[in-house]
Amino acid sequence: MATTRVVIIGAVALGPKTACRIKRLRPDFDVIMVDQDEYISYGGCGIPYYISGDVSDVNELMSTSFHMLRTPEFFEKAKGVKVLTRTRAESIDRKAKRVWVRNLLTGQEKDLPYDYLVLATGSIPNRLPIPGLDHPRVTSVSNLHEAMAVKEKIAKGEVDKAVIVGAGAIGCEMAEALSDLWGVETTIVEIAPQVLPGVLDTSLARMVQKHLEEHDVTVHLGETVREVAETDEDGPLMVRTDKRELEADLVITAVGVRPNGDLARAAGLAVSPRGGILVNQRLQTSDPSIYAGGDCIEVLHQITAKHFHFPQGSLANRQGRIIGTNIAGGSARFPGSVGTFAVKIFDMAVATAGLTRKAAEAEGFDPVFVLVVQADRAHFYPTQDLMYLAAVVDRKTRRVLGVQGMSHNGDALVGRINALAALLAAKGTVEDLSNLEVAYTPPFASAMDIVNALGNTAENVLDGLNRTVDPEEFEALFFRGKEDDLLCLDVRGPQNAAPFVARFGDRWINIPQETLEERLDQVPRDKKLVVVCNSGVRSYEALLQLRKAGITNALNLQGGVAAVKKSGMVDLSEGES
Amino acid sequence: MATTRVVIIGAVALGPKTACRIKRLRPDFDVIMVDQDEYISYGGCGIPYYISGDVSDVNELMSTSFHMLRTPEFFEKAKGVKVLTRTRAESIDRKAKRVWVRNLLTGQEKDLPYDYLVLATGSIPNRLPIPGLDHPRVTSVSNLHEAMAVKEKIAKGEVDKAVIVGAGAIGCEMAEALSDLWGVETTIVEIAPQVLPGVLDTSLARMVQKHLEEHDVTVHLGETVREVAETDEDGPLMVRTDKRELEADLVITAVGVRPNGDLARAAGLAVSPRGGILVNQRLQTSDPSIYAGGDCIEVLHQITAKHFHFPQGSLANRQGRIIGTNIAGGSARFPGSVGTFAVKIFDMAVATAGLTRKAAEAEGFDPVFVLVVQADRAHFYPTQDLMYLAAVVDRKTRRVLGVQGMSHNGDALVGRINALAALLAAKGTVEDLSNLEVAYTPPFASAMDIVNALGNTAENVLDGLNRTVDPEEFEALFFRGKEDDLLCLDVRGPQNAAPFVARFGDRWINIPQETLEERLDQVPRDKKLVVVCNSGVRSYEALLQLRKAGITNALNLQGGVAAVKKSGMVDLSEGES
Repeated sequence: MATTRVVIIGAVALGPKTACRIKRLRPDFDVIMVDQDEYISYGGCGIPYYISGDVSDVNELMSTSFHMLRTPEFFEKAKGVKVLTRTRAESIDRKAKRVWVRNLLTGQEKDLPYDYLVLATGSIPNRLPIPGLDHPRVTSVSNLHEAMAVKEKIAKGEVDKAVIVGAGAIGCEMAEALSDLWGVETTIVEIAPQVLPGVLDTSLARMVQKHLEEHDVTVHLGETVREVAETDEDGPLMVRTDKRELEADLVITAVGVRPNGDLARAAGLAVSPRGGILVNQRLQTSDPSIYAGGDCIEVLHQITAKHFHFPQGSLANRQGRIIGTNIAGGSARFPGSVGTFAVKIFDMAVATAGLTRKAAEAEGFDPVFVLVVQADRAHFYPTQDLMYLAAVVDRKTRRVLGVQGMSHNGDALVGRINALAALLAAKGTVEDLSNLEVAYTPPFASAMDIVNALGNTAENVLDGLNRTVDPEEFEALFFRGKEDDLLCLDVRGPQNAAPFVARFGDRWINIPQETLEERLDQVPRDKKLVVVCNSGVRSYEALLQLRKAGITNALNLQGGVAAVKKSGMVDLSEGES
Repeated sequence: MATTRVVIIGAVALGPKTACRIKRLRPDFDVIMVDQDEYISYGGCGIPYYISGDVSDVNELMSTSFHMLRTPEFFEKAKGVKVLTRTRAESIDRKAKRVWVRNLLTGQEKDLPYDYLVLATGSIPNRLPIPGLDHPRVTSVSNLHEAMAVKEKIAKGEVDKAVIVGAGAIGCEMAEALSDLWGVETTIVEIAPQVLPGVLDTSLARMVQKHLEEHDVTVHLGETVREVAETDEDGPLMVRTDKRELEADLVITAVGVRPNGDLARAAGLAVSPRGGILVNQRLQTSDPSIYAGGDCIEVLHQITAKHFHFPQGSLANRQGRIIGTNIAGGSARFPGSVGTFAVKIFDMAVATAGLTRKAAEAEGFDPVFVLVVQADRAHFYPTQDLMYLAAVVDRKTRRVLGVQGMSHNGDALVGRINALAALLAAKGTVEDLSNLEVAYTPPFASAMDIVNALGNTAENVLDGLNRTVDPEEFEALFFRGKEDDLLCLDVRGPQNAAPFVARFGDRWINIPQETLEERLDQVPRDKKLVVVCNSGVRSYEALLQLRKAGITNALNLQGGVAAVKKSGMVDLSEGES
């Protein structure tokens, strides 16, 4: 029998994983990877850390954990995989089972026969439809060439001011990379009215925005870039938005990516309108001899049961192994994804899974947004810090549709989101969330941990016990709205409440929760009440006391003063409660 | 209609949670808690941190997150719950629905009528069947009185040497508490042949033992304490084991607890042989008017489908809320537990869920133990550290039965164990583990994260691709066994292998994995081979290369040199690979 031949197009993440898995299972197979670049098998997600200087040498992104450079020679010798770099796959002849490739250095063309073909063609950065993007100081950071060019410019001292277009994960990571170590004066311009659009709902997005601003990043939201123009040859570029002009020595565009299904489409394979290759759970395309995975495919969303594009190095790795298993004759399946996501922004981590409230609404759910603020450890443990965790739950089915969180303790947050992602994938309800089994020991968790508290709060909200107002709504109603008949009832201790009473006078009254029962007659009955404590827990207790006393129109500020302050909605120096 | 009356016996963890939940849902109910102690509603799991000094004031263990002391007055005013402290429940008259209680200060007795009764009677520390335990310098640390007495002795400088009996979680936490800040010369004596018996299998237990010893804790395993004797009135006590005599100014016994079902049994309720109260998923006892939860009940184990005793503050809190909901007329269920567990020991965290290999064997499974060593972050990220993670999987069903891990990065480990616990509860297989969706970003995870790598390795082992030897078995075979026909093939780089080659001579040969293909003729074919790298990954690759070349008797050292060194089995100063 002739040797089975596998051709893999693309050698960054999925390609190498697939190739190695095949060779481990079937050392007798011929496996060849082609890539148009000279750099292969690198950690693209490490680019911001390379630019920031956290990763000092670009080779580290291309090395194994045991410090060997993953060169074509390495793949040949250590893995038995042949690699053709600087080689572009031009077309696929599915009938003849051949890929036509061209060497970009020599111009030489040839065809590679295959029994199985793997498409790992990745994604393409979106390009803004504006003039001025071809200037050498305007770039995306989607590959190592761009990354090295950016770092060189910065290291040479050529960049005092930068403008980043897009406040998604890459935009935020790049803001940190430029400003934290290098001290570049950095501005983000984002077309959406919030940072991390699509990832966070507004309450948490406000906190992230504040965090960026506290680290001297200027953030302009709801603003469209119209043009990048040269001022003079050596001078800064001028970024013109619909609202202002910004000088920049460097402009980084980070406005998302689209799946690169061009080759697949040209070969007549099924591809989504946005270009994502369609695959089954075995990761086969519409041609059973051709597999595809990584950033170029559409992924099944386990909450919506629809396709979405979710370019993540982790998915590429897991999918690469599955394709390898299947080509080697096994049977492995990729179950889909709930969109689990994490990003570090300065000393803050953001992590999410599932749908935002906004996305859930668009999908036809009746979502409720629940926000909890609680310590990441037992509250008596000395090093604890507040964590902000939210859930989006469906009113009708009580299913948890999404979770999103923020914490200075990134490991603690990401771990909790991972556990919650497992719950989402299992189609868990708020009751399942209340009972999600998380390990308890005071240095790492609370006895009633924040994930369970989130479930409890969601349950109380769905059951109508807890009637909440979001920090954003509260800001509109109280800080900006100045509704005369809206009153804050602060149930914290007098020390914590005093600065607010001093600032807001008659509109902010203080009755500590443990004295409320005796002082119910002091609660105005002709006003709309928002009950406030530091986190939303004591105010919930107070809300129920008010209800018992017949005061039923009160709302509980979820996330409490902690969330309001974290969002920068109010700035009063006072102790925590 | 008459007011519904709820009596709760026990006011530490479950009791207060139940009481508050009932009052929130049904403020019209009369809720009364009785407790024989004067201290109520405290975080018992915080005792080691109070003794260590991490928590400076014992009141912190009895305070809310907003620093209010949870006194009887607090419960009365803030929660509407009545509390009788220093009051012991003597008996239950189920027919008359009355609890007979006695005030321990006044001797006064009375009966409390109830519509619903809640048993939160906790657990009782096991007592060693040996003489000398009544000495005032011999104590357990199961309540605040004992904790305060221990701390007082240490703070007064009365304790230079301590012996801890029992190397379970409390024993290990106490070893840290005594020795880390206070500098007490501490010895642990454990009857089992390992630390954390029942929690860890031996491979990881060895690493924890080494960690304790590196922090100057003496550990004696497989050793039975026979007696504690006085030397002279002011002198140290003498702890006599079956192997030695140990001087001690303080002896702490931490040999487990049993559920306190005495009152329940006396009332004719269904109780397990070990004393655990039997409840249904609504947490009702065999008398539907009587609920029970927390440390006094038997819990359904979601892997074995049998009862087990799992005293955890977290379960008590979650169960307390469920009982509250049910008594208030709702319908909540406790699904059981997979035994998720965490403990911090000096600067190392241990976390587990599910069954150990040993326990799985006892339950009739055919368990395979798989150990993976990998960085807790992207390997190129500057602050990464090695994590040790193991799984116990069933050969037949491929189901994951248990996980156990160790890391200096406790949050990162506990988070992963929490995600894995969700997988265990969902009866996930090794394939599900390979695809468990964890968030990826270089500062907090790897693209192929250690949890997925664990699934991949388990799959390779089950499929016969990866034939492994555990660090413990390797120690017996190689370091202690000195089998002449056993050879180590070290496939790391020469720099890493050199000290081992120098030490073990002919028995340790070095052929770097990427050169193996060309040097296959140098591999002896008449010897039993153990292939070794730093973690088990490159050696797996080499194992497959050997197999392709017809060398099929080789084994892969799982966890690699990293695990062997972490266990203290070999001590050579050399660089990491």
